[in-house]
Amino acid sequence: MESLRDKALAMHKAKQGKLEVNAKVPVQNAKDLSLAYSPGVAEPCKEIYKDPNSVYDYTMKGNTVAVVSDGTAVLGLGNIGPEAALPVMEGKAVLFKSFAGIDAFPLCLKTTIVDEIIETVKQLEPTFGGINLEDIAAPRCFEIEKRLKQETNIPIFHDDQHGTAIVTVAGLMNALKLVNKTMTSIKVVVNGAGAAGVAITRLLHQFGARDIILCDTKGAIFEGRLYGMNDIKDEIASITNFDQQEGTLQDVIKGADVFIGVSAAGALTKEMVELMNDEAIIFAMANPIPEIMPVEAKEGGAKVIGTGRSDLPNQVNNVLAFPGIFRGALDVRATDINEEMKKAAVHAIASLVSDDDLTPEYVIPLPFDKRVAPAVARAVAVAAIESGAAKKMMQMEKVTS
Amino acid sequence: MESLRDKALAMHKAKQGKLEVNAKVPVQNAKDLSLAYSPGVAEPCKEIYKDPNSVYDYTMKGNTVAVVSDGTAVLGLGNIGPEAALPVMEGKAVLFKSFAGIDAFPLCLKTTIVDEIIETVKQLEPTFGGINLEDIAAPRCFEIEKRLKQETNIPIFHDDQHGTAIVTVAGLMNALKLVNKTMTSIKVVVNGAGAAGVAITRLLHQFGARDIILCDTKGAIFEGRLYGMNDIKDEIASITNFDQQEGTLQDVIKGADVFIGVSAAGALTKEMVELMNDEAIIFAMANPIPEIMPVEAKEGGAKVIGTGRSDLPNQVNNVLAFPGIFRGALDVRATDINEEMKKAAVHAIASLVSDDDLTPEYVIPLPFDKRVAPAVARAVAVAAIESGAAKKMMQMEKVTS
Repeated sequence: MESLRDKALAMHKAKQGKLEVNAKVPVQNAKDLSLAYSPGVAEPCKEIYKDPNSVYDYTMKGNTVAVVSDGTAVLGLGNIGPEAALPVMEGKAVLFKSFAGIDAFPLCLKTTIVDEIIETVKQLEPTFGGINLEDIAAPRCFEIEKRLKQETNIPIFHDDQHGTAIVTVAGLMNALKLVNKTMTSIKVVVNGAGAAGVAITRLLHQFGARDIILCDTKGAIFEGRLYGMNDIKDEIASITNFDQQEGTLQDVIKGADVFIGVSAAGALTKEMVELMNDEAIIFAMANPIPEIMPVEAKEGGAKVIGTGRSDLPNQVNNVLAFPGIFRGALDVRATDINEEMKKAAVHAIASLVSDDDLTPEYVIPLPFDKRVAPAVARAVAVAAIESGAAKKMMQMEKVTS
Repeated sequence: MESLRDKALAMHKAKQGKLEVNAKVPVQNAKDLSLAYSPGVAEPCKEIYKDPNSVYDYTMKGNTVAVVSDGTAVLGLGNIGPEAALPVMEGKAVLFKSFAGIDAFPLCLKTTIVDEIIETVKQLEPTFGGINLEDIAAPRCFEIEKRLKQETNIPIFHDDQHGTAIVTVAGLMNALKLVNKTMTSIKVVVNGAGAAGVAITRLLHQFGARDIILCDTKGAIFEGRLYGMNDIKDEIASITNFDQQEGTLQDVIKGADVFIGVSAAGALTKEMVELMNDEAIIFAMANPIPEIMPVEAKEGGAKVIGTGRSDLPNQVNNVLAFPGIFRGALDVRATDINEEMKKAAVHAIASLVSDDDLTPEYVIPLPFDKRVAPAVARAVAVAAIESGAAKKMMQMEKVTS
């Protein structure tokens, strides 16, 4: 039998990758050419020169997203470089198209220097309606995203941070209903202080969680820790771990209601789950092997378990978030993907699992649930307008129609 | 009746531009996803990490070209900026696909600074199999192309220079047969010292023309001219105008066998044509209105007249060159588009007009002649291998099969 490896290699080789660029207009004869190219093409050029906003009417910009990576944090493979990252970025672009009709194009950059990545993306702004940053290692990813948000006028979104955070928090909201706990009262331990762990922690805080501890490879992060800190961890320390608990995951997991793992296979043991509060909620998202397998977590007393795997219940899959988020942002020509838009995405995803359908094995919609992208898009578009990231009422009409 | 303007605007608006990005593989279910994306996608990533050259096997890179512009010299519109240039670059990408099956993607840059353009393109090298520079104003375009050729390992081609030059010289070769003159014996006046004029002059020189005068808006360029010179014009002066003739186009056109205009409407008058040698050859390529209309040129005594227009005979259209040139370069994974490859393209284009078919109204193949791109591609691929710009014999087999 052909292995997954053989199948995947054969599929990538068969057509020289997974993505192609096609014309939406025919060019079969001189008449076609005179409209799509010289001399007719001068007309939209002149219109855009007069009214720069009309670039969204006459060009691909308004439906086009760049998937930008430097290849430093690719899947679980790490820093494999921009060429080796290209299959992932092509795949991401395939998902953008399949799930939200967005024309996404991979751009794998030759540099890993923060300033050079920022400069390159800024130069590309005229062509793209948005930028999806992907597989850029922490902590550089934080500064790159922050500065691009400040220095460009188009939506910037680092999916490894926010996509994961949004789907996780949506799943957690639903899981909390099952165990009759509330965001403000729970103790959450997040394990893994990379892009996803930091973003999850920040988003949990925005959703009202107050008792959060983020652990990195050196254990719990707390204000005043003297080892392995950086600007981001300092900021996280200021909003988490108010008792300044020190220690390993095993130390701080005691009495936790929720464990969120974005770390490594086997990081959580059954014994640690036994130290958690009753009806613990566990999102063990290390790929391909989770921090703990659901069977073990159940044995330890956990009530709801999610992973990153498609062959297990409650898959935390970014595809639930980024297609709809960009679809909504592009539809209203948003200049940003702000916190309100992300929160709207969380609520939209969570709400697609009705209270009647909610079970410990179903707190997150399925990846191929066709309701998800449109629902997220609509919620994000409305939030963009209400929060001022998109302005025109005409665009509101587009969204509601 | 709807005007060309209305039709062109409507066509560009109907589908929000002319280009889309599509998946070549299906993503309809979890199994598809496991091959195109996680976890299967890790396999080609690992292969490319082990063998960087396999990026050409497993990704889109080998069939993908960036169409890069800063929007400073767009059509006859001039410096209209990157957003307003986007319709042209999309159109170019449409042509790449329609004529040569190449996946081309427009990248309009926010900067017009030489170093920044170079840096940006260099950062993008991992994703693209080649770079087509487009509508970048002279003289910056010369340095940008030169340095990118030195500092990257993929084919770099400024179409406004070389595409125009290649088709013009191909047409001229055929026209010379009609009037029984040879490249080495003719006097050629090139009017317009922008990207195209400089490239045409250089290519004519490579093809053996020795009596060439290039005129800019200040008249004939000659060695030692004290006004309006730059590095490029100094270089041109060193290989042209050996008598250091000074004066306007009207002065230097006397006794010329060939006029090549890449300048402005009306630059050449019937009276000037009358000053030329018998059976003059005229390529009047200003767009949309040529330096002289064919009727007038004929009245002045010209034998062969070409223009840039699709509604007149002998259209000099870059679409005869760039699709096949990139097709050939990509097919053998060439690291450059060198002089030998450009010369091969000239001969391939010229040879498609057989001696039997050759008339003063037909010295250049028609833009939609389906023989052109494959013939150019094959000639360019062979030249790449023979000149060392592509190495593998395996690739030679691909070309000849």
